[in-house]
This record gives sequence, C-alpha cells and structure tokens, in this order.
Amino acid sequence: MSDDPRFVERTRVEWRGEARSEALDEIVREEPLELRIAGVPIAVVMRTPGHDEELARGFLLGERIVAHADEIIGIRHCTTVDLPEAEDNILLIRLADSVELDLARLRRNLYTSSSCGVCGKASIAAALAPTRELAGVPPLRVARRTLLQLPERLRTAQVVFDKTGGLHAAGLFDAQGELLVVREDVGRHNALDKVIGWAAGRRLDFHALLLCVSGRVSFELVQKAAAVGIPLLAAVSAPSSLAIELAERAGIALVGFVRGDRLCVYAGTDRVEG
Amino acid sequence: MSDDPRFVERTRVEWRGEARSEALDEIVREEPLELRIAGVPIAVVMRTPGHDEELARGFLLGERIVAHADEIIGIRHCTTVDLPEAEDNILLIRLADSVELDLARLRRNLYTSSSCGVCGKASIAAALAPTRELAGVPPLRVARRTLLQLPERLRTAQVVFDKTGGLHAAGLFDAQGELLVVREDVGRHNALDKVIGWAAGRRLDFHALLLCVSGRVSFELVQKAAAVGIPLLAAVSAPSSLAIELAERAGIALVGFVRGDRLCVYAGTDRVEG
Repeated sequence: MSDDPRFVERTRVEWRGEARSEALDEIVREEPLELRIAGVPIAVVMRTPGHDEELARGFLLGERIVAHADEIIGIRHCTTVDLPEAEDNILLIRLADSVELDLARLRRNLYTSSSCGVCGKASIAAALAPTRELAGVPPLRVARRTLLQLPERLRTAQVVFDKTGGLHAAGLFDAQGELLVVREDVGRHNALDKVIGWAAGRRLDFHALLLCVSGRVSFELVQKAAAVGIPLLAAVSAPSSLAIELAERAGIALVGFVRGDRLCVYAGTDRVEG
Repeated sequence: MSDDPRFVERTRVEWRGEARSEALDEIVREEPLELRIAGVPIAVVMRTPGHDEELARGFLLGERIVAHADEIIGIRHCTTVDLPEAEDNILLIRLADSVELDLARLRRNLYTSSSCGVCGKASIAAALAPTRELAGVPPLRVARRTLLQLPERLRTAQVVFDKTGGLHAAGLFDAQGELLVVREDVGRHNALDKVIGWAAGRRLDFHALLLCVSGRVSFELVQKAAAVGIPLLAAVSAPSSLAIELAERAGIALVGFVRGDRLCVYAGTDRVEG
C-alpha cells in the first residue's frame, strides 16, 4: 500500500480474452477541495490530493482573485471539520487586507468554477450524496463481447476527431451494443450532456442504455450518468477513485481500459456477463 | 472552407525536422454557451458548437434542474443579442410552470459549472476580454530544438501517470528547456494551477518561463497562463479555436502537436526560433 496521496489501491476484475483475474489496481485519487477566503467558501475544485497549497495559490492568481502572490498571507488545511470525508479537503486562505474582495461576486462566479466536477453541489458532503438509485431497475447484464466492441464503434463514428485530434467523444448504445448516437466536444462532460439530451428528446429509457466515452472517467461523468439512470459506463481509459465510489453507490457498472480483448470492471461486476 | 460548425480553419506554421511549411489546419471550435432560464443566465459552458439543444437538455437533467425531459417546454437560440460574438451562443430555456426553481441558488451553484473554461467570467463578453498584456515584456524567443525536448522531459517526470494512466501533467521549464517542476492531476487545469502556484510561491519571473502540458489546450489553460504572464505554452496535442484566439490577443506563443521532430505554431510565431 502506497503512502502517496495521489492514488489508492482498489480491487478490480480484469478480463484478457477468456482469462479472468481479480487484483489490486492503482487508481488515481480524485477528491473535492473547498477553498475558503475569510471563512467563506468560494470554490470547490475536483482535484488529485497533494500540493494543495500550490493549487490554491495558482487558482487565486489564475482567476485574478489576487494580482500578486504577495497578497496571499496564508494557506492552511482546516483541521476542525466535523465531516470525516472533508478531512484534508478544506483550505483556509487569508489574503492581505489591501485585497478588495467582492465575496458576493466571488461566490456567484467562482463557485464550482474550474471544477468540472462537483458542479452545483454546494458542499463536499452534498457532492458525495447518493444519487438516483438503480436498485429497483431490472438488472441489465451485458455480454463481455458486446462491451469490447463499443470503443471501436465509437471511434468509427468520430468523424471530427479524425480531422482535428482535439475532441472527446461519448456514445450511447443499446444493450446489444448497437450504436445509437455519438457526440464530440472539447469538453468530455459536454459530449456526455449531448448524448443524454439526444436520448431525452426521444424519451428513450435510460435504464436500457450503455454509455461509452473516449477517455478517462471522472466523478462528474458518473454523476451525470447516475442522474438519468444509465446502468453501465465503459471507457477507453482509467477511472478516478471518486468515479468508482460513486458508481458503486449508484449501482452503475464502471468498466475501464476497454482495449482489444481486455477490459477492467471497477464497479458493478454483476452487470458484466463473464 | 467547411460548413461544419464544429471546426474552423486557421493558418499555422508546421516544422518537420528542418522543413517549414505554412498551411491551413482544421481546428476544433470552442465557444462559450450561455444558458438562460426565464431570462436569467444560470450557466456558461465552454463547448464545441452544434447540438446545443441536446447539450442544454442533458445539462438540465444531469444537473437535476429538472427531473424529467417533459419539464423542458422549449429551448431556442437567442436572436436579439447586440453582441456579435454572442451570436449562436445564448440559449433561452423555458421550463414547465410546475418546476420549482430557486434561481438564487442556481446562479450561485451552477454559474460556470461544468464549464472548465469561462470560470468566473460573468458573461461571454468578459470571457473574451483581453488579459494581462505581454506587450511590454522583452520578446522571449525559444529554440525549436528546445521545444521539441519538452514533452519527453515532462513524460519522464510523470511518475504517477505511469502507474495509473489517469492523470494530466503540466510542467514549467526555463528558457533553455530545463525542467523546473511537474505536477499531475485528474484535472488539466489543476495541474496548471499547481505549477503556477509552485512558481508563485518562489517568486519566479513568469515572463521567463515555458509551460508544457500533456494533452490538449483549451481556452481555460491559455487564460490561466495569460493571467500570470507566461509567454509560451507548448502541448502534445491540439489547441482549440478559442485557445488560439486568446493566445494571439495576449501575446502568447501557442505550440501544439510537439511530437518527435514535429511541432505546429498556432500563435506567436516570432517567439519560436526557426
């Protein structure tokens, strides 16, 4: 077990061809960091723990909350929170008296800014709250063979990516792996919003759909899938720790590294037919 | 010239070994989309234009502003803006009367949420406003050979990525290409904030530093570099249209696709020694 705060070990099931193995995998940590100035929460950033003071300093400069590093008097972790999950995840910032802060403006404009994650959740606790349950939903199960085909079908439909190399893709499939829609966007969350919006406009039943994304899986993507009740999320790359945690809580199967004849199941193993 | 709203053509200088060429390149478009409910702006999302209605529908569901697609009565583009840049970039949303909206909460919690981009800029106009000028700064020029070495040096220092495959990296270098610091994070903007915060804590002169990132370059990354006056941003992958536009306005050299003996200069060609 590593002491590096940047990742954790989680058990996952890996399939390579017909060979199934279960082992510890190293997962990059993703956790919310709340920044407070003079006690007032001004932003929640989904980040990998470690170097939090640097993150806060760069954030304050990059968002022009301060004009110069000297205006930052102190940054320290809050040690008096009563929420275990928030330990190490709240930073108290003190700025020079000369800094004119319009806290009302800051709260409005910066809250969740730069986050790509907690989006609209007013606290760390709320961000981790359980989402719409899939508990009452018939247990959709998907064949491994079907899952292995999704990335290639997504890629084939990715016309824009081929041209610019600059886009994330998200695709919705039926339970047999037939592609229904692909959308591409500079933002991975936007590509996901677009396919969800497409299906919602057609009143499709999200409980019967599979989602596949071109890159990594962050907390936010699982959160959006959970909000509409999509039971399975497959990705070409790695999930974050918080993505796995939320997928487990929401009853979503989370499958990563779907490449060639290989895939790794990080949550909801029972939804994947062996 | 393509009619596809998802990309634009821009002239860029490409170097392959000693061969220099100048040609049109297809660039993925990135533009802010402002969502208004009952006339009130509730979010700005940096997105690739196209399928905006789907994006809005998915966003409303994913952020739980509505519980069901039927609660969305209408979505249409605003056609009466007096700001040319905002054309096609404002969506007017009408929800069913039964939807209880706490607009104060929405504004506070959702503004810029999901954006990864405009972060704290209360309007599209503000998002495109010029940033701190590099005009008065001595024209830092960097040898092509130096630029070509940056990605490999970044990668070598990326210990966590090697383990999990789940992280973005950002690195700061001196003008001779010596690596000063690398930070990795699930969020590309966080990795950037961390290296900026590292340098700010040491009171380094940002005007003399080079920035290299592991992936693509969005508007937000250029915005953060501009805020502290970094004159050159190099990336392994593609920039977005708005990243190039802002780099030009801010006097930042923007170099993409730095791979092997190849690189493409999208802005600030005079900062790259041929």
